[in-house]
Amino acid sequence: MCCSGHVRRSTPPGGRLQERTPVTSIEDFISQYGLVQKIDAFGYLDYLKSNPDAPRKHGKVVLVTADTPLKASRGEGKTTTTIALIDALRERGIDAAAVLRQPSMGITAAGSKGGASGGGKASLTHPELIDWGLCGEMGAIEAAQNLLVSFAEKAVDDGKLDTILVPRVSEVPSRSLRQIAVDRGKGDVAERVVLTPTCELMQIVVLSRSMDEISERVAKMVAGTKDGKAVTFGEFVDLWRITGILGDAVKPAKTETVNGSPVYVHGGPFANVSIGIPTLVSVEMACALHDVVIVEAGYGTDAGAQKWLDIACREYDAQWPSAAIVVTRASTWRDDPDLAWRYPFHVQRLEGLDIPTFPLINLWDGEDDQIPALKATAKELEFRDPIIGNLYRDGGDALAPQLDAFVDAVTNGSMPAEPHSHKGMALVENVRWVAENAYGVPADRVILKDGFAESLQAAEGLCASAGIDFGSLALVAVKSPATMTDNDRAPEAERTVTLKKVEVHSGAGLVHVNLTTSLTTPMPKIV
Amino acid sequence: MCCSGHVRRSTPPGGRLQERTPVTSIEDFISQYGLVQKIDAFGYLDYLKSNPDAPRKHGKVVLVTADTPLKASRGEGKTTTTIALIDALRERGIDAAAVLRQPSMGITAAGSKGGASGGGKASLTHPELIDWGLCGEMGAIEAAQNLLVSFAEKAVDDGKLDTILVPRVSEVPSRSLRQIAVDRGKGDVAERVVLTPTCELMQIVVLSRSMDEISERVAKMVAGTKDGKAVTFGEFVDLWRITGILGDAVKPAKTETVNGSPVYVHGGPFANVSIGIPTLVSVEMACALHDVVIVEAGYGTDAGAQKWLDIACREYDAQWPSAAIVVTRASTWRDDPDLAWRYPFHVQRLEGLDIPTFPLINLWDGEDDQIPALKATAKELEFRDPIIGNLYRDGGDALAPQLDAFVDAVTNGSMPAEPHSHKGMALVENVRWVAENAYGVPADRVILKDGFAESLQAAEGLCASAGIDFGSLALVAVKSPATMTDNDRAPEAERTVTLKKVEVHSGAGLVHVNLTTSLTTPMPKIV
Repeated sequence: MCCSGHVRRSTPPGGRLQERTPVTSIEDFISQYGLVQKIDAFGYLDYLKSNPDAPRKHGKVVLVTADTPLKASRGEGKTTTTIALIDALRERGIDAAAVLRQPSMGITAAGSKGGASGGGKASLTHPELIDWGLCGEMGAIEAAQNLLVSFAEKAVDDGKLDTILVPRVSEVPSRSLRQIAVDRGKGDVAERVVLTPTCELMQIVVLSRSMDEISERVAKMVAGTKDGKAVTFGEFVDLWRITGILGDAVKPAKTETVNGSPVYVHGGPFANVSIGIPTLVSVEMACALHDVVIVEAGYGTDAGAQKWLDIACREYDAQWPSAAIVVTRASTWRDDPDLAWRYPFHVQRLEGLDIPTFPLINLWDGEDDQIPALKATAKELEFRDPIIGNLYRDGGDALAPQLDAFVDAVTNGSMPAEPHSHKGMALVENVRWVAENAYGVPADRVILKDGFAESLQAAEGLCASAGIDFGSLALVAVKSPATMTDNDRAPEAERTVTLKKVEVHSGAGLVHVNLTTSLTTPMPKIV
Repeated sequence: MCCSGHVRRSTPPGGRLQERTPVTSIEDFISQYGLVQKIDAFGYLDYLKSNPDAPRKHGKVVLVTADTPLKASRGEGKTTTTIALIDALRERGIDAAAVLRQPSMGITAAGSKGGASGGGKASLTHPELIDWGLCGEMGAIEAAQNLLVSFAEKAVDDGKLDTILVPRVSEVPSRSLRQIAVDRGKGDVAERVVLTPTCELMQIVVLSRSMDEISERVAKMVAGTKDGKAVTFGEFVDLWRITGILGDAVKPAKTETVNGSPVYVHGGPFANVSIGIPTLVSVEMACALHDVVIVEAGYGTDAGAQKWLDIACREYDAQWPSAAIVVTRASTWRDDPDLAWRYPFHVQRLEGLDIPTFPLINLWDGEDDQIPALKATAKELEFRDPIIGNLYRDGGDALAPQLDAFVDAVTNGSMPAEPHSHKGMALVENVRWVAENAYGVPADRVILKDGFAESLQAAEGLCASAGIDFGSLALVAVKSPATMTDNDRAPEAERTVTLKKVEVHSGAGLVHVNLTTSLTTPMPKIV
């Protein structure tokens, strides 16, 4: 091969160098990995950027979100809906694709939860691949985050750190790992282990648009402290050792529905304790390849959707949705009168943001006769006409005839404007804004728990000591997936939101605020 | 597709069902995984078994082993030799392939050790793939073994177990994990974490010839005890959850040298604390595809080679080698007079087993002028003519002209006979046999340390309580990689081997005996 100027050198996994002939299409960025394909999204998006005339689409993002679930392990059917929806849209001649997060293999394998890859007629061709570790992406992120902890231990030995703040991770759930002591019998150092999907490195992979950005973000992660002053990983870690491990993990996987519709799977942060959305590059790549891109965000509208809108769109330049679908099961919405306020709240909230919002009721067997009543209630609530179907039983066929208004909204709406950033807003003010807008609790009923002010001050001090701009961090509300307030069953005028503590993820550019409803730590027990 | 009797249903990873057209060759069992290929070796070997007329080769196994290293982190160059050797053999028109173990990514990534994929002209096309986690095989084994521990914890909660004996694993080294306490502040349960390559599940993957066998072996693993009686995982775990995770990990990877020679990589048990050999199926598959199969066993002849011969061949039906190559660096062999006895001991030991054994001296830069002296010493010691070269600098070219005798021995020797099993031999008698044969220490200088008899008795009791036949377990000597005896520098007549403790790996069918030189636990510190 001659040294022509057209020869492109790319640097995939582990700094491998490859000679490449001139790129002509997405195909040049796709590799087969067993039954799925992996796509070098960083390379493809970079190619589009440096070749403005290269063909591409300008797909619109549709958010699939849901009612707040009654409990963490009970899904409303977002993935089933997402799969049925792209099958139905493609049946109508629209080039639609879906972007999903990778489910946590540990939890699936342990039997604590079913898979998260649809079901019945709304299924993927190889759901077990998605559910059981895909191509090792989660394992690579786990190894890289744990390696950071090992390097932090070495930094303690070397006198560069005296306290480690970054947690070890495990993809396999084990409640006894919530609180551990390492160096038993010697130092007996207290530590905690969290589930891999909840860690900062997973957030970094979700939010970054290049390996260099990942490297820069890992460098900014706070490893721990020395004499009370924050020390970042950039101060003592060879960053190529971390990015080397992540070489394949940064590539979205492509699979398809049983009807052949394209589905990209990438990134797996939990929605209640993290950011709950697939990687930004997987969505952007899908938008360059398809006209409509259905993005599934985790748990309810108060969790993943809030995070897509207020974190990804406001602070990380993700695309504001052209429409939203809010999934519910008939029983979630209506059978518990104390909680029946939540579903209409979510629908109205999204409509209030100028996002055309379509209620979708995912029926289970034996519920078909509820359709007239559900329609009547939706009308009373001044919803758009609800989309109703048994998606497990009927798949996309249940949806296709009901999508006229949805398709009209998505295809005829103009590309949405960019939302304004909340950067610089004081943290408590920002939480109050979220409480008011996403949970329906006015600012004066946001309560600071004893110790919160100290936790906030400590977080601000930690950032200041390492030259991190605390005001530039985006807010992540950490809460139970099943509640939006301290008590969702309380009358509206009495609902409160209480802030418990603050944790900085400076590499990801995030600051976590735990609400009182947050779990102690995201390390479930096998049940 | 019609329901013809010719359609074959196979059940690869995670119980996926695939329709397959009739199988015609190995190609039907190969899938691309990025830059490497993965081969369904279980499926291919099963196909050969049920199609006795299908074309296949009957390749001969050659063992590449080495002098005992001066320290654990200093390699003699076995992988470099293996790569150069297949390149040289293929240059001579012989269809040769190599089978390597997968290096421990944690240690490579941590910088505690270089990679283990050759170097210079004796390199793989994508060494970084092999060194940095391959296709997630090690990660999958880690997740599966840790999931077993989580299930054991659940069994404790359910009253089925009171003590857990199976350790958690980590691919990432961290010395502080050697001894940990989980449930800190509540139960404060003492535990240990070991490196993934050292765990029983890795041994099971290495020794099994089908997913059913893996499943049966996992079922026989001792999870822990209840009222002093052993409880196996088969008593309380859904085994499909474990085999589901291992779906892709059981498939050997195929890559190649920079000269295009085929290299299979599969399994990564350490040689000093485990069995140190690649998976049996990867070697058997390679033997069906090539005429000469070079198998690299870990560390010195006293470690991986001893284990290939005495465990894999004697007890697990692996092929007895048709020749062996014992690699040394000139400096290892001769620069330390106290340890210079070890290299000739290894060469003579293998010759004594009727294995044509070829000394190979892997020169470093500046050592070419030592060749005459090395040859003279080899002659004095009555070795076969040594093969000498700078393999990093010259690759296979350094070897090709020196291989006449080697090729003659391999191609003209008859297929070796099967060795007799040691099953039923008393454990201490078996260790004495190994000490005498593999370490040169006579039976009367094998010492039982205080506590050993109790440890042995406890292991026998544990097995008896679960109906496991202790006498059927194959012996794994657990020792330092750098020594064969309690003190290799002592005069021959004073060298001893001391037995410290016994540990049962009943799923793998192994019993470990720790010698005094064994490390406390295989969890290194990052250096």
